[in-house]
Amino acid sequence: MKLTILFGGASFEHEISIVSAITLKQKLSNFDLSFIFCDQDHTFYLIEAAKMKAVTFSKGEYKKMPKLLIANGGFVQKGIFSSTMHNATVLNLIHGADGEDGTIAALLDFFSIKYIGPRIDASVFSYDKRYTKWLCKARGVKSVAHEELNIKEHKNINIEYPIIVKPARLGSSIGVSIVKEESELDYALDSAFEFDGNVIVEPFLEGVKEYNLAGFMANEEIHFSIIEEPQKEMFLDFEKKYMDFSRSEQVLQAEISKELESKLKDNFEKIYKDLFEGALIRCDFFVVEGEVYLNEINPIPGSMANYLFDNFENSLAMLLSSLPNVKKAKIGYEYIHSISKAKGK
Amino acid sequence: MKLTILFGGASFEHEISIVSAITLKQKLSNFDLSFIFCDQDHTFYLIEAAKMKAVTFSKGEYKKMPKLLIANGGFVQKGIFSSTMHNATVLNLIHGADGEDGTIAALLDFFSIKYIGPRIDASVFSYDKRYTKWLCKARGVKSVAHEELNIKEHKNINIEYPIIVKPARLGSSIGVSIVKEESELDYALDSAFEFDGNVIVEPFLEGVKEYNLAGFMANEEIHFSIIEEPQKEMFLDFEKKYMDFSRSEQVLQAEISKELESKLKDNFEKIYKDLFEGALIRCDFFVVEGEVYLNEINPIPGSMANYLFDNFENSLAMLLSSLPNVKKAKIGYEYIHSISKAKGK
Repeated sequence: MKLTILFGGASFEHEISIVSAITLKQKLSNFDLSFIFCDQDHTFYLIEAAKMKAVTFSKGEYKKMPKLLIANGGFVQKGIFSSTMHNATVLNLIHGADGEDGTIAALLDFFSIKYIGPRIDASVFSYDKRYTKWLCKARGVKSVAHEELNIKEHKNINIEYPIIVKPARLGSSIGVSIVKEESELDYALDSAFEFDGNVIVEPFLEGVKEYNLAGFMANEEIHFSIIEEPQKEMFLDFEKKYMDFSRSEQVLQAEISKELESKLKDNFEKIYKDLFEGALIRCDFFVVEGEVYLNEINPIPGSMANYLFDNFENSLAMLLSSLPNVKKAKIGYEYIHSISKAKGK
Repeated sequence: MKLTILFGGASFEHEISIVSAITLKQKLSNFDLSFIFCDQDHTFYLIEAAKMKAVTFSKGEYKKMPKLLIANGGFVQKGIFSSTMHNATVLNLIHGADGEDGTIAALLDFFSIKYIGPRIDASVFSYDKRYTKWLCKARGVKSVAHEELNIKEHKNINIEYPIIVKPARLGSSIGVSIVKEESELDYALDSAFEFDGNVIVEPFLEGVKEYNLAGFMANEEIHFSIIEEPQKEMFLDFEKKYMDFSRSEQVLQAEISKELESKLKDNFEKIYKDLFEGALIRCDFFVVEGEVYLNEINPIPGSMANYLFDNFENSLAMLLSSLPNVKKAKIGYEYIHSISKAKGK
């Protein structure tokens, strides 16, 4: 099965996308993989599988590899006498900006390239944490109480400490702080506003249970991963989370009741359906006093959350053969013709 | 002032985009305009100003004109010996799919081309009527009660007749019906589902007052158009609305109280701020018993609602010189370097 891994991007998560791609190379050994790297200047390069090592990127060696142009139907490699078209289905593995904000989705849609990954709408609702809250509300999924702050306005926070401060639009814990008391607030806000003019504040819930569940739609039904209770950490900082993107060992199912399992799946489905089709996503939930709260949607989880699936290659193959079709409008010129006629021309 | 009008697109509103562009050519005579047409196959063509006539498109004559490729910084016209780069700021005038769903916005963002028009997020919230309702709710703007229907599920409607049935994601009244009694419902739903798998149903409000207000942000403040009370029609069908896109005569300010005027502007601002920066939009409001309801956001109004502005060229020039800058992430390889070090490589 042919598949192109698209990774990199002009994003704070550029590096973890590289790590994710290297991990997937190992996990998808039965696929016929190719690798396309998007550098920070938005130039595309075809990377030989043997060169899929961190050093290729950190030392800039990728710049010697063939450049590609995106065009209708795929990525074009210009030769001296002829061009090669790389038109395999793409796995969008660009984390953060570009990949998760809808840009790459739009690009691939526009050029009629099939892809695994969130579509434009789904990207907007998962990339900005404020919009994720709106989505939850509209679909009857609980989420943690929050307040929104904008860099241009001063507003008092009415949530009791400790609180957690997050830039509205970044993943991987970048710019996120836990604030125990008011004296620490300004510094935390400065850190968050450095990355985004909009910030959200939530109560920092201690002793909360966390569960991660991934899944995707194929053949009209959702296929779930196992449910993981992630390792307890006071807080995942960027470096720890970064390591997290190279995970490849399968984890064990969390020991939870059938009832909780079905509640988690039910909430996942409410978020996924009629929005995330075409993507394999991971939802991170909190459980407080038996109630399920959505914490975060990862529409392109690190290394595609391979470690949560019993048979990851099989799952990805299923998704690959069940991607949504874009319905294109048929263009006619009936109105122009009829108006020209009415005008006597 | 240089400006490129980008129009066409693979959209049901392809033709009205052409009409819009022709109208703007007349209205922006002091601008140094160029015209780029996106055909239904997503190929770009450079159209000579003198050829900006309906017949150029309806007869396919545009196909003889120079093809352009989108690339970093602009649109490239390949010559035999050299290439020309068209890098003026773009006015996104593609109505409906492509232009208003976030696709063109993402494309222009990705290739670092400055443009007038809604950004990705703003597009998603205005293109899908369901998401517009969520936006209203989150920002304290009233909108008409509604129910959502999906093509795959049968659901009873609990709104009293007459009702109005609309595809969730199309503009220009395509697929919209007014349903007076239940016996007409199936036909109306079929018409709407032909265009979109999601449909919204609202009560059809008779005797309601309608007001349209356009505006844009420049130099940190919103500049409003006059407020128009559009001509009363039982219902704007596609052909009538189509003619509407070629409007170029300035209209008169509606005779309304200062209080209502400020209510309308206040609601416009709640919708616009921190979302529509970079775009000139038109909000269509209903007024029922003194209360203002948002009916619809037009993030790329027909012929840019030129007829609502006292000095349209001046307004557009202001917007042009105040477009948002994209903050690009700086890429480093610190984590890869530090991890390589830790591994002793």
